[in-house]
Amino acid sequence: MRISELSRRSGVPVATIKYYLREDLLPKGEAVSTTQADYSEAHLHRLRLVRALVEVAEVPLARIRAVLAALDDPGLDLHTVLGTAIFAMSPAPEDRPGDPDWDRAADQTAELLAELAWRITPGSPARAQLTQALAAMQALGRPATPEMLRGYAAAAHQAARLDVACIDPEAPREEALLYAVSLSALMEQSLGALRRLAQEDVSAARFGAAAPGAQGREPGTEPR
Amino acid sequence: MRISELSRRSGVPVATIKYYLREDLLPKGEAVSTTQADYSEAHLHRLRLVRALVEVAEVPLARIRAVLAALDDPGLDLHTVLGTAIFAMSPAPEDRPGDPDWDRAADQTAELLAELAWRITPGSPARAQLTQALAAMQALGRPATPEMLRGYAAAAHQAARLDVACIDPEAPREEALLYAVSLSALMEQSLGALRRLAQEDVSAARFGAAAPGAQGREPGTEPR
Repeated sequence: MRISELSRRSGVPVATIKYYLREDLLPKGEAVSTTQADYSEAHLHRLRLVRALVEVAEVPLARIRAVLAALDDPGLDLHTVLGTAIFAMSPAPEDRPGDPDWDRAADQTAELLAELAWRITPGSPARAQLTQALAAMQALGRPATPEMLRGYAAAAHQAARLDVACIDPEAPREEALLYAVSLSALMEQSLGALRRLAQEDVSAARFGAAAPGAQGREPGTEPR
Repeated sequence: MRISELSRRSGVPVATIKYYLREDLLPKGEAVSTTQADYSEAHLHRLRLVRALVEVAEVPLARIRAVLAALDDPGLDLHTVLGTAIFAMSPAPEDRPGDPDWDRAADQTAELLAELAWRITPGSPARAQLTQALAAMQALGRPATPEMLRGYAAAAHQAARLDVACIDPEAPREEALLYAVSLSALMEQSLGALRRLAQEDVSAARFGAAAPGAQGREPGTEPR
């Protein structure tokens, strides 16, 4: 197909496709004249993947090359390819050695992960992201408790099982990858929204006007 | 205390405190001379809350006024005050009536919430946020399934129960609010990081080099 049809079928503007070609994010088409090239279904699939990585998963262009290199390496299993993409989506915050809040949070993360015994790469960016959030709670003087972290880990594992169950290892790797990165980004937004909705439900039961004891509150709970 | 001590104890620079005073986010201190004012512990608590709303929860200043107005309204119960803050943290995306992906996603959201029967405000921004993420999955041609949404809702409710259990209704409302907004923002980051870690664990078991059947893959699953 011509570049115009590739644009129409993918919904990606021609100028953007030309940019991806110049940046080596999309292989060149087969030249049919000095000014025209022919593109295949493989180009269309690759283009949709690049678009999803840019638009949905918000991966910077420089990192997309690493994801595509992993995808094209026949020596890597699907787990490694998926991991490369997920790592590229969410860079690790920098360590803050010597910051007591960070050190305590890093200990919390290490203890939790030792207890969970999940199979994870020691350098996973998500590990440092967890430490960063826990360090901020330390800094507020209200550290997360081990019980809370265990409960959150159970909820997160439940979501992750649903995520991974959606990925079809028999599908072409490009398609599995497109789906995995989109799902990871969009279901994270969905999970956040559902948590806010659920918070309202639980808060209504506990603190709402119709909650047990709402009429008989202690004076200390009234605004000052 | 003088403004310098308020700054030292809160960690907020004097210039920022003066800005909050001008913007009516912090009540004026008691004048002790033409150039000096005295600030109380109540100022310190209010300042810490405003700082957490700005820095941790990333609420725009204009919305913080609405949160503080709810906090100071003795007619509102704690549930309403918490809801005002959580709503202010995460504004609703705009409806896209007539967009078929949005319409289908709005139906998915309505069906899920009808089934769950959570006590939520019809205009909750989180409802539109969920619809937005589900519309993006519709646009990719891979809509979330009802089973997946139910599973995610269960995980989200589990996290929300942990969140709400941490809030002490006997504590001063300002403190409960500070904790609730910080917890909501930081535990959302923690939950996202834990989900990415759990994805790696589940993917290792299912697709990794040591996974059952990894050596005997169908040729169709190899990269093209």
